[in-house]
Amino acid sequence: MDSIETVIAAIPPLDAGVMAAARARQATLTKPPGSLGRLEDLAVQLAGITGRTIPAPLQERAVLVLAGDHGVTAQGVSAYPPEVTGQMARNFVAGGAAVNSLARSVGARVIVADLGVASDLDDVAGLRRHPIARGTADMSVGPAMSRAQAVAAIEAGLSLLAEEAARGLDVVCTGEMGIGNTTAAAAITAVVAGVSSVAATGRGTGVDDARLEHKRAVVARALDVNRPDPADGLDVLAKVGGFELGGLTGVILAAAARRIPVVLDGYIAGAAALIAVALAPAARDYLVAGHRSAEPGHAFVLARLGLVPLLDLGLRLGEGTGAALALPILDAALAAHQDMATFGDAGVAGADVAAGQSAGRV
Amino acid sequence: MDSIETVIAAIPPLDAGVMAAARARQATLTKPPGSLGRLEDLAVQLAGITGRTIPAPLQERAVLVLAGDHGVTAQGVSAYPPEVTGQMARNFVAGGAAVNSLARSVGARVIVADLGVASDLDDVAGLRRHPIARGTADMSVGPAMSRAQAVAAIEAGLSLLAEEAARGLDVVCTGEMGIGNTTAAAAITAVVAGVSSVAATGRGTGVDDARLEHKRAVVARALDVNRPDPADGLDVLAKVGGFELGGLTGVILAAAARRIPVVLDGYIAGAAALIAVALAPAARDYLVAGHRSAEPGHAFVLARLGLVPLLDLGLRLGEGTGAALALPILDAALAAHQDMATFGDAGVAGADVAAGQSAGRV
Repeated sequence: MDSIETVIAAIPPLDAGVMAAARARQATLTKPPGSLGRLEDLAVQLAGITGRTIPAPLQERAVLVLAGDHGVTAQGVSAYPPEVTGQMARNFVAGGAAVNSLARSVGARVIVADLGVASDLDDVAGLRRHPIARGTADMSVGPAMSRAQAVAAIEAGLSLLAEEAARGLDVVCTGEMGIGNTTAAAAITAVVAGVSSVAATGRGTGVDDARLEHKRAVVARALDVNRPDPADGLDVLAKVGGFELGGLTGVILAAAARRIPVVLDGYIAGAAALIAVALAPAARDYLVAGHRSAEPGHAFVLARLGLVPLLDLGLRLGEGTGAALALPILDAALAAHQDMATFGDAGVAGADVAAGQSAGRV
Repeated sequence: MDSIETVIAAIPPLDAGVMAAARARQATLTKPPGSLGRLEDLAVQLAGITGRTIPAPLQERAVLVLAGDHGVTAQGVSAYPPEVTGQMARNFVAGGAAVNSLARSVGARVIVADLGVASDLDDVAGLRRHPIARGTADMSVGPAMSRAQAVAAIEAGLSLLAEEAARGLDVVCTGEMGIGNTTAAAAITAVVAGVSSVAATGRGTGVDDARLEHKRAVVARALDVNRPDPADGLDVLAKVGGFELGGLTGVILAAAARRIPVVLDGYIAGAAALIAVALAPAARDYLVAGHRSAEPGHAFVLARLGLVPLLDLGLRLGEGTGAALALPILDAALAAHQDMATFGDAGVAGADVAAGQSAGRV
């Protein structure tokens, strides 16, 4: 297996020449310049990622759902019992969760991996098994994991992505499940994006005011006890992260090294991306933000990464749902880029340049 | 053919009982309540529209692209020559425009109709022919059309929708093409939404400051010359509308009467919806706003209709592109609604009710 360092070194910058050619192609298509908005930018980004002026359709697509448990749930930060992590992992494998429905709807396969679930999942056929431990330690009293475990979690993500790439993979969506993991995401965001634990910590999917205050205090205590180094992604992951977060970091790095676009889900995926980009700044250009999470901390993640989500539909579920839901937008961007007629081919007049207009159907 | 009055009278209210049952079903699915955000609301709306607690997948889908020319282009309000309307109608029929690519990408058929194009399109096979006249009159010096022509345009839309419904139609997307039609949409919006011509008039796809000022003055003059009655949708359509706008009004009314959901594109479609809802308030609940147009006047249309777009991707093209692009979101909403497991089926614990939490994975 490749080491993390080898994978990071293999991440190329986007192909600027191909991007310029893709942008030039957009200008020849039968529409006012820029009138397809972000679809045009997406087509150009995907060209730069894949190194093809006209990228092929994204046929092979997977949502990787990585599951892990969190010792910090002992502090009562979640409205759901930790057993739900394992129960939902079973539900993902059985095809009954929201991400399964959405993935089917957009033609993506769902891959479920145990990165460190506390429950016994030995009997679950079809589960990818990369358990680092049966849940992290409680980050509010010490590091969530050792540095060696953080490396192992990222390496598990590298392996998962390599396995899917071997099956064929044109785009990957990040998914996760882990009761307690918005608490870990909040701690990572506070450290890496440089915001307060209050700003980074939200209600998850609906805790009340009292528990929100408690959750914020737990995040603050975890940061105070551990003092993660924001310049050291591995240190942040080890001290206040999670096994599934480390796995997603590895997925992102390995996809970028293979020039495969990564569609991020919400807050948890964003926190993993913060770690990935801290380790490998070049990975950032391979990211597409699928949707804007209802979690307030997500805005800081997006600002730090310089990403604007494609969708804003009030999702606050995780699992990869917001990433899967964005795939048809990538498809549409590539479809227009590939098969629209040009002004010349279609015999359509361009804008009234003589009148000093740059563009415009009005 | 049914009369406009007959169609309006046939529009039922959404089925409140079915909507309550759909909402109750959402609460049993393996996710925190509300965590799929607007996907849940969409599923409930589609249940109410179709009268089925679990609506069938939207298999039969069409983008109706209605084309018409506008006499007001004589005032120099557009950066493109009016000939482009006919050229683009040919491009739609040939399959080379953006809406064709996007419709293919989402599995929708494209139907192109001449509601009143100035160019000669006699040789274009496959075009639906409902020409009211070869373009409207210049609304800045008098009514764009007669009241009889406005009725005929709406009736053409009724016919087009009836024809598609006979072929099978589970959802319809509104599309249009007409050089000059953002000027008409601005006039309609100013009248019906009660805003100034300055607020309602935008740059279309890119006129400069001087031409924007001129365009605003032309809209103001059209309103001053014609004095359309905001309470009389037909009067507004006749005086400052367009043939393709009237056609879209008919499409919306006829779809609502058949309990078929309508996905609106941007500003032009929104202006047609203002007319439709002025004529038949019950039609409003059948509408889904596909995307937020970059045209500033669209915000007033949406506020008046009480709609929030599903997408906001900077599109300013029309043609039905923003509506087609939204279809996969409806698909995803219905997929989750239909085939997710319930908490009972999957053996997944719900929220920690004993701790006083209403919901939440945190």
